[in-house]
Amino acid sequence: MLLHLVNPNSTASMTEQAGRAARRVAAADTVIELWTPPDTPASIEGYADEALAVPAMLAAIRAAEARGAAAHVIACFDDPGLNAAREVAAGPVIGICQAALQVAMTLASRFSIVTTLPRSVPIIEDLAEAYGAGRRCRRVRAIDLPVLALEEDPAMARNLLRTEILNAATRDGAEAVVLGCAGMAELCDWLARETGLPVIDGVTAAVKQAEAIVGMGYRTAKTGAYDWPRAKRGGLFSEVA
Amino acid sequence: MLLHLVNPNSTASMTEQAGRAARRVAAADTVIELWTPPDTPASIEGYADEALAVPAMLAAIRAAEARGAAAHVIACFDDPGLNAAREVAAGPVIGICQAALQVAMTLASRFSIVTTLPRSVPIIEDLAEAYGAGRRCRRVRAIDLPVLALEEDPAMARNLLRTEILNAATRDGAEAVVLGCAGMAELCDWLARETGLPVIDGVTAAVKQAEAIVGMGYRTAKTGAYDWPRAKRGGLFSEVA
Amino acid sequence: MLLHLVNPNSTASMTEQAGRAARRVAAADTVIELWTPPDTPASIEGYADEALAVPAMLAAIRAAEARGAAAHVIACFDDPGLNAAREVAAGPVIGICQAALQVAMTLASRFSIVTTLPRSVPIIEDLAEAYGAGRRCRRVRAIDLPVLALEEDPAMARNLLRTEILNAATRDGAEAVVLGCAGMAELCDWLARETGLPVIDGVTAAVKQAEAIVGMGYRTAKTGAYDWPRAKRGGLFSEVA
Amino acid sequence: MLLHLVNPNSTASMTEQAGRAARRVAAADTVIELWTPPDTPASIEGYADEALAVPAMLAAIRAAEARGAAAHVIACFDDPGLNAAREVAAGPVIGICQAALQVAMTLASRFSIVTTLPRSVPIIEDLAEAYGAGRRCRRVRAIDLPVLALEEDPAMARNLLRTEILNAATRDGAEAVVLGCAGMAELCDWLARETGLPVIDGVTAAVKQAEAIVGMGYRTAKTGAYDWPRAKRGGLFSEVA
Amino acid sequence: MLLHLVNPNSTASMTEQAGRAARRVAAADTVIELWTPPDTPASIEGYADEALAVPAMLAAIRAAEARGAAAHVIACFDDPGLNAAREVAAGPVIGICQAALQVAMTLASRFSIVTTLPRSVPIIEDLAEAYGAGRRCRRVRAIDLPVLALEEDPAMARNLLRTEILNAATRDGAEAVVLGCAGMAELCDWLARETGLPVIDGVTAAVKQAEAIVGMGYRTAKTGAYDWPRAKRGGLFSEVA
Amino acid sequence: MLLHLVNPNSTASMTEQAGRAARRVAAADTVIELWTPPDTPASIEGYADEALAVPAMLAAIRAAEARGAAAHVIACFDDPGLNAAREVAAGPVIGICQAALQVAMTLASRFSIVTTLPRSVPIIEDLAEAYGAGRRCRRVRAIDLPVLALEEDPAMARNLLRTEILNAATRDGAEAVVLGCAGMAELCDWLARETGLPVIDGVTAAVKQAEAIVGMGYRTAKTGAYDWPRAKRGGLFSEVA
Repeated sequence: MLLHLVNPNSTASMTEQAGRAARRVAAADTVIELWTPPDTPASIEGYADEALAVPAMLAAIRAAEARGAAAHVIACFDDPGLNAAREVAAGPVIGICQAALQVAMTLASRFSIVTTLPRSVPIIEDLAEAYGAGRRCRRVRAIDLPVLALEEDPAMARNLLRTEILNAATRDGAEAVVLGCAGMAELCDWLARETGLPVIDGVTAAVKQAEAIVGMGYRTAKTGAYDWPRAKRGGLFSEVA
Repeated sequence: MLLHLVNPNSTASMTEQAGRAARRVAAADTVIELWTPPDTPASIEGYADEALAVPAMLAAIRAAEARGAAAHVIACFDDPGLNAAREVAAGPVIGICQAALQVAMTLASRFSIVTTLPRSVPIIEDLAEAYGAGRRCRRVRAIDLPVLALEEDPAMARNLLRTEILNAATRDGAEAVVLGCAGMAELCDWLARETGLPVIDGVTAAVKQAEAIVGMGYRTAKTGAYDWPRAKRGGLFSEVA
Repeated sequence: MLLHLVNPNSTASMTEQAGRAARRVAAADTVIELWTPPDTPASIEGYADEALAVPAMLAAIRAAEARGAAAHVIACFDDPGLNAAREVAAGPVIGICQAALQVAMTLASRFSIVTTLPRSVPIIEDLAEAYGAGRRCRRVRAIDLPVLALEEDPAMARNLLRTEILNAATRDGAEAVVLGCAGMAELCDWLARETGLPVIDGVTAAVKQAEAIVGMGYRTAKTGAYDWPRAKRGGLFSEVA
Repeated sequence: MLLHLVNPNSTASMTEQAGRAARRVAAADTVIELWTPPDTPASIEGYADEALAVPAMLAAIRAAEARGAAAHVIACFDDPGLNAAREVAAGPVIGICQAALQVAMTLASRFSIVTTLPRSVPIIEDLAEAYGAGRRCRRVRAIDLPVLALEEDPAMARNLLRTEILNAATRDGAEAVVLGCAGMAELCDWLARETGLPVIDGVTAAVKQAEAIVGMGYRTAKTGAYDWPRAKRGGLFSEVA
Repeated sequence: MLLHLVNPNSTASMTEQAGRAARRVAAADTVIELWTPPDTPASIEGYADEALAVPAMLAAIRAAEARGAAAHVIACFDDPGLNAAREVAAGPVIGICQAALQVAMTLASRFSIVTTLPRSVPIIEDLAEAYGAGRRCRRVRAIDLPVLALEEDPAMARNLLRTEILNAATRDGAEAVVLGCAGMAELCDWLARETGLPVIDGVTAAVKQAEAIVGMGYRTAKTGAYDWPRAKRGGLFSEVA
Repeated sequence: MLLHLVNPNSTASMTEQAGRAARRVAAADTVIELWTPPDTPASIEGYADEALAVPAMLAAIRAAEARGAAAHVIACFDDPGLNAAREVAAGPVIGICQAALQVAMTLASRFSIVTTLPRSVPIIEDLAEAYGAGRRCRRVRAIDLPVLALEEDPAMARNLLRTEILNAATRDGAEAVVLGCAGMAELCDWLARETGLPVIDGVTAAVKQAEAIVGMGYRTAKTGAYDWPRAKRGGLFSEVA
């Protein structure tokens, strides 16, 4: 199967990191196609960054579908444009936050999430609520480091994350921890070893869930909120209008 | 005060209608500046339409702030980009859905919402939940008419809306009804007279709420999720980066 | 318009303070009529105080309607008798807690409330839930000072409030703070300057919201829970029975 | 034990009916003292009726405590003034709605409530939510008959109730039904026989729960929201001030 | 009445303790029959222990019904098998957690629960949510002592419980505390005296609630989720199949 | 990988059907080991059936782990003993209800569930709530056919299911439908073709999710509620005690 992994931000090194994490777990017959947009924000830190990233991502998803992509993974923990992407795709579209939380709810009775900046905490809390985590998500914590600093100072990032994961265990009663940024994917194994907890990365969770859903033969529902966008002037399907 | 009323879609006649509704209730010293984007979808009917409309809207809000706009109203009932808009504005940003629901929760113990297409029902249900309506919002109903048909066949729209409002009263126990589309603003008074219920339009609700909040002297919080977007390559404030 | 501002407690100096706060933000054509009941509790600190204050307040609202009042503001943060007041009024009735929370939910993604006594914390938590704040209201905090002490020792009140607002920001992640007592109205601006946060006072919020709703032409729904009280022996409308 | 059963409304025949229902289930050593206020509304149908009834009720509870009452039952399904009553009593105060719902949640996985007037539906829905019924309460139904008509035309009341209970079973999937008015207490057994469902009356539920809690030796918590009202001018305990 | 008190675990001394607590509050005409299973886990600490205990308990309940038991109390705070037990009993089945929480919600506006092991915290949180405690249950705390240690080192248990109850009061704002293990029943009075709070034990709460419901004449609903198990091979009622 | 698929009931033909469905979607390197208990109820229709099935299932899971099973699927839509199973397994344990709902929440914005008997409706509603479906799950519907009748009269089952799925689409606004019984697995494709909706079967969903989680390398959290059962007399790990 052809799996389309889109990084909403325009930092190619982050796409590459997500791609490496994805390929490490992908099935032998999964071809992962990476996509980095040219002009979107360098990182997604807040609602405006999200909003600027989505139109290019929707176009990329349409193009990938035309090339035969069977499923799509949005490699940003805010799941930007997830619902819109489901409108424009026939194949399943997986957000790494939703995928990671589904895994967490399968492995643990209570978990916490550790993200980058405090400003993202309410955003992720709202996603956790929308995805049904409820009280299973004990708390969303932030290490107060910008997204790009994860790559610029990985030692610092690692230490801050380890500390915050241990805080989640001792103070929140978290039995597992979800990493709240795609840029943390490659730190996942080290953090799990250091802390002794299941540490869940959304990129790998989403890739495997995409393979699973394609393997079941399901596609996105097309009779309600995720129906194809209506053709119209200025719309995504304006050529039909 | 200068009030910036943005119509996310590119149909100028809808902007004009919203403008007329707004001016009818605005205070004497409120100057309403209308904005219609050139290239966004002709109507907002689903998540993808929303996503395509937001970037231009954010730019328009920044520009209006630079011209001295004290507040902004987003004249689309899906409140597209509302959180992102709050990041890029110092003045309050009012979504017509949130404003209408706040009025409804002040006037009635239970209400329903009537919108255009069935595909918008889950979108509006999620907004009602996010805005805290809970069980006060009995039901979101759809007349199954596209947004632009409200202007093309107003007689049909009127009849369908009257019927659905009466259904809301008798079947849902709704004591008031919120109109779930900016394009219904000018039908509001007629529907209220015909049905005997408070019928609440979001455009007027948002304009008056904007005036009210400016009158109290409040501005958008800037220390958390609504803080200014971080300056970065490709970001809205990239010139600073 | 004639705006009826009722103070449920019998301390005239508190009515006066609320009146000053109200007049500072009211529109030029808003006439604010203050009302202090002669015999109700000197302050509202708990459910029993609320209960004793409501009957006189309902009578005052009826009388004010007869004099032409277009709207009513209940100037006590517990919103005592708010639903009952909506039954006996044709014009909108605004509770300062509901109004303040609606403003907070428009300006901030997360906020906290600071009130006087710990015994009021569950009362206000329940109101915040009823008004749909959900997780947007991080926490209700108390400075452990009785209501009347706000006037008796304003320096102490000011300091305690400043400290607790800063606690809300640093410990709760509050981006704005709502003042949980009508008697704090005149401290609002000073606290906002001192803390750098939007600090929201319910009295001014309610006055402007009342003006806004009257400006839209809406009145309280009269077909369900807020319908006129049924005429009956011993009832409010017993003269009709 | 001395059990104080207060009827918030001033219709003595309703107090007598509640008293008969109470005495039929009371333990041999329970003395039930009935109280009918002289001047409150003849029936409680809405928020304003509730508000007018509470102050006299609070005074009656204080007086009964002074006479040695061990517990109090408020015999109106809206549970008017329940929280305030808990402030002024050392013994437990039982609301018949809360008591009936606790019994329903013990006997059935899903239940409905049948009340008198449609205007009471939102009031009771909110109580059911506050008492934690959540989705266990399928629906609140109304027979659209005023409270006093239950006594005036018992045959009509009986038929309407039977029909609505059967509707609850077949349409809501209710496994039990709660009677949503103290004035229905004596119809309970007949309705249970006719419909084959557990039909739960709040008056008897509250009396037995009061006996149970007194039998365990528990009293109302006095360190938070239910602490004694603070002594103050105009307050319930003003004589202490 | 014959009241069947079942201890799901196989530690007879715990059954005896629960029996003593039960008899201390039971009515004169209540005969309490105790039951300890021979082979279930020695204590219930987690989901697997619960699962192993339930089948024997269901058989015991059927047998007790055949002997004329009017009601059943499950004396383990996890309420193991409560729903299944309601299927196999005509009389009411009371879980001590549900009973204790109903009492707590009657006596206090906010309460906390103190249990034994941290692993039980999510289990009890989920029960509190299922029983509708919502935000009324501030927090579930654990003293980190295994169940059987309550009997082996009562002095230690007492001290840990006292400390944690006081923590609940000062840090959670709890106005009452529920003991989260049947094995704490006999410490209840001492803890209440030491802490000055209502301290609620589920065994006594359940016994009195069982008497109350039997006294009202109610039985378990038999038309839906609590209907008799269907007769089938391998089922509880397989002899009928 | 070795995947252990346990059918909690003792009807071998149902295990075989689930096995066929599982093998149809399993990866090439997945070995599916089926297990049917000898003495549990012939079908799971209610809480008591569930309770009788769990102990044998827990023993089977322990034995399978000892044989090297990497993951476990519980092939009954009530997810009986799911939490207990997670205590006794190191590998992930997947319940078919939770797995199916996670897929449904990925493919559709709103869905319904169709199960066998009405008595299972509250059970499944509670599961849907626990798994976070919230308002995304529109309704749980029942065809009123016992589980074993699915095999005995497949034509009838098929017709009833088709009708109810179409009802879900037109009356509930469901965009996808989840089959609420393991015994419906082989009807899934036919129903999807007939109705035009995504029709989701839990057995295949669980098998693919198990493969996915094993493929990510995650195991069940072992520091809280899913920690190994404590060794004790009568416990599952009693040999250690």
